Amino acid sequence: MSDAPARLTPRQARAWFREGLQTPTSGWSVGWTQANLIAVPRDLAYDVLLFAQRNPAACPVLDVTEPGEVSCGIFDGDLRTDLPGYRMYEHGRHLADRVDVADVWREDLVAFLIGCSFTFEAALVEAGVGLRHADNGTNVAMYRTDRECRPAGSLHGPLVVSMRPVPAALVPTAVRVTSRYPAVHGAPVHVGDPAALGIPDLSRPDFGDPVEVRDGELPVFWACGVTPQAAIMASAPPFAIGHAPGMMAITDARDTELVIP
Amino acid sequence: MSDAPARLTPRQARAWFREGLQTPTSGWSVGWTQANLIAVPRDLAYDVLLFAQRNPAACPVLDVTEPGEVSCGIFDGDLRTDLPGYRMYEHGRHLADRVDVADVWREDLVAFLIGCSFTFEAALVEAGVGLRHADNGTNVAMYRTDRECRPAGSLHGPLVVSMRPVPAALVPTAVRVTSRYPAVHGAPVHVGDPAALGIPDLSRPDFGDPVEVRDGELPVFWACGVTPQAAIMASAPPFAIGHAPGMMAITDARDTELVIP
Repeated sequence: MSDAPARLTPRQARAWFREGLQTPTSGWSVGWTQANLIAVPRDLAYDVLLFAQRNPAACPVLDVTEPGEVSCGIFDGDLRTDLPGYRMYEHGRHLADRVDVADVWREDLVAFLIGCSFTFEAALVEAGVGLRHADNGTNVAMYRTDRECRPAGSLHGPLVVSMRPVPAALVPTAVRVTSRYPAVHGAPVHVGDPAALGIPDLSRPDFGDPVEVRDGELPVFWACGVTPQAAIMASAPPFAIGHAPGMMAITDARDTELVIP
Repeated sequence: MSDAPARLTPRQARAWFREGLQTPTSGWSVGWTQANLIAVPRDLAYDVLLFAQRNPAACPVLDVTEPGEVSCGIFDGDLRTDLPGYRMYEHGRHLADRVDVADVWREDLVAFLIGCSFTFEAALVEAGVGLRHADNGTNVAMYRTDRECRPAGSLHGPLVVSMRPVPAALVPTAVRVTSRYPAVHGAPVHVGDPAALGIPDLSRPDFGDPVEVRDGELPVFWACGVTPQAAIMASAPPFAIGHAPGMMAITDARDTELVIP
């Protein structure tokens, strides 16, 4: 598909995923906001929303469905089928990656769409900050950290971060550009020292694919919308559904709606 | 007390209010964040939090208590007694203003602290935008508008705004300064035409005190944290507690923590 995915409308991209295409969505539908998915039964929804409120860098809430609904204001598709991949959790255990979740969706589920750093990637590229994972055609590297999120009700868990290697001279640019996007994680949470975040080995990400950090580059870490799924794993509620990390909901919201001018 | 209230620490200010002083808090404890209070039973808490998420300009959530707790991270006092005034609602009806609510507080209440525009008033004054309500020693003027908030579960209601008269030449300054404080309502929602917001008569505010708009000035309207109380009045849940409009919770958070640099 070469660079065609970049030019697809959200509706066109979602049609590919509904047909069964499984792929990370970095670089897809440039200019349209991508979102993490976490869906939980109504009786856990307050804890998820409060967890998001208490950890806004990792969990910026873009939209929330009504119980049982499979679309919402910023997503005019079907959340059960229109993402490239899903994960289903029972008691915190990730059972299997799935191409859709229509057969296990429940009437009492509330779905949260959480901002995703893929949204600011086009702005990074435009500012001259290249993206090696995109150049390589791989998923972004994501790591559990040893930083605990602020708990909420029954939910607790570690902060998850995404990492992109950035030439040292461009680190300020990367910070400046992304800080204008607080609704999709905003400025990095950390620059340069994986050990300080409790990440033992950059070459072994917890989610996504490894990426080389070359001489003269620093690993730059942004809070990641997989954090709610790490909380599901740590807190083990009976049932939850998330997206497969890196395989996002492509929404009908424009990136420009999220930027601070 | 002359200008002494401006220099009180949050703890000192709260001690005055706990002793029974009833006063609008505009100008108090300059540099410390003020907050609106809305407390509801746990079974309504999700609707309040979702209402806030869907109406972030009016309802920026600063902190949320655990059920039954009367303090939280940014408020090291007693939410039942340490505000200058309270309103108690039963089935949406405001019964009476109260100096404390210790006798009617319930174990299942969850309290939300919502950002307040008093927080950016010091920055306005510093930028040369005077505050007539403060000069007059009166409460800020607040109005119900005809703009409906996005509903959430059982909660619906109109946007409430606060109004400050601003000389026409200073309107851009007022917008610029306050837009840096998105966690306390941010930029104005409207400038100049009360009728366009469905406000029939500026001299008759729905909350607070009227304030003169002089020749050469425009009325400038900011989203207001009384909005959740207007939703309580419109939606009529069995029980809720709010602050008396203009009589805020003075928190232990610094204004500078909320500003976009």
